[in-house]
Amino acid sequence: MNTTATDSTTKTTTKAPRAPRNGVDTPLLLGTIGAVAGQRELAKFTFRASNRWLRGTHSQSRMEGFYGAGGEHMQTREFVYDADHPPVLCGKGEAPTPVEFLLHALAACITAGIANIAAARGVTLHEVESTVEGNIDLQGIFGLSESVRNGYQNIRIGFRIRGDAPESKLREIVEQSRARSAVFDVLSNGVPVQLDIDAR
Amino acid sequence: MNTTATDSTTKTTTKAPRAPRNGVDTPLLLGTIGAVAGQRELAKFTFRASNRWLRGTHSQSRMEGFYGAGGEHMQTREFVYDADHPPVLCGKGEAPTPVEFLLHALAACITAGIANIAAARGVTLHEVESTVEGNIDLQGIFGLSESVRNGYQNIRIGFRIRGDAPESKLREIVEQSRARSAVFDVLSNGVPVQLDIDAR
Repeated sequence: MNTTATDSTTKTTTKAPRAPRNGVDTPLLLGTIGAVAGQRELAKFTFRASNRWLRGTHSQSRMEGFYGAGGEHMQTREFVYDADHPPVLCGKGEAPTPVEFLLHALAACITAGIANIAAARGVTLHEVESTVEGNIDLQGIFGLSESVRNGYQNIRIGFRIRGDAPESKLREIVEQSRARSAVFDVLSNGVPVQLDIDAR
Repeated sequence: MNTTATDSTTKTTTKAPRAPRNGVDTPLLLGTIGAVAGQRELAKFTFRASNRWLRGTHSQSRMEGFYGAGGEHMQTREFVYDADHPPVLCGKGEAPTPVEFLLHALAACITAGIANIAAARGVTLHEVESTVEGNIDLQGIFGLSESVRNGYQNIRIGFRIRGDAPESKLREIVEQSRARSAVFDVLSNGVPVQLDIDAR
């Protein structure tokens, strides 16, 4: 998730009112940011998912709603997502692995920001594609080595962006999206995770 | 993702061969870990996704295959996942936000590990459910405050687990899954993310 368009680096390009562009309602977006600037409590969001174990390594999550902008919001429709391990890791491969969803989240977050920022800067996008990969050594989760971490050792994402602006401006848009990406921040810097258990 | 069953804490409970349980092919799982122990290169995996911008904040990812266990693997079927921002954040809400997919990944990873570890320890599970939530202050991504981070400020996950073992043993299974969860590690500790840009 990445919605910013107001960083100081963009000031010179946002003097004139911006029309909707790239499928982004730019006036609404800038108006929303302005409203939040005037009432900071609106910026507090809580996102949620619930998960249920199905069988083996296969489970299913639902995202039904979230809190934000001062109130509760239902999702626009039912969002249900499975995850599983692949056969080579003794699962049934009913869905991607959990770690692959991290890659989806990263690509989608920076891409959404690119569209918003391009719209705010008056740039029409023709194409944004990315490929993302993460390297992991399963000696960690297999408990075969105490010196190998459980998670990805590194992630690489490559963006291909085409639009009606010079290469340098397109690059700046991607860089700015990275600089304001929620998922990039979480994956790069980590976040405190609390785990509670109700066992019986 | 979490597949471990061989940490030292489990040694006393894995003396006898384990039958399949919880939908986990326990002999295959333990055999796989044994095979990797004898040939460490098999533990190297690379997971991938490709993403394409659709319109506004809406994009779509595909996971087509991955490298691991010494070779390339195609997914068992086509895995396609969208992401979007919700209307309250000026998106169309066509899919969950990228940050919600992080929550799905976390819950699914620890849950898969719980099933594997329980099977390895001879525990039959009746029910595993979890709820996960993440708090985020959008002043960060809106560029309204330099002191507010872009990503989640904290994540909380609560597990409800039921099975044919004492509470303490069920708790230990959840704790061991957390201790060997790839997604828990990535979210808690972060990972280096490299970004490349092809702009034109």
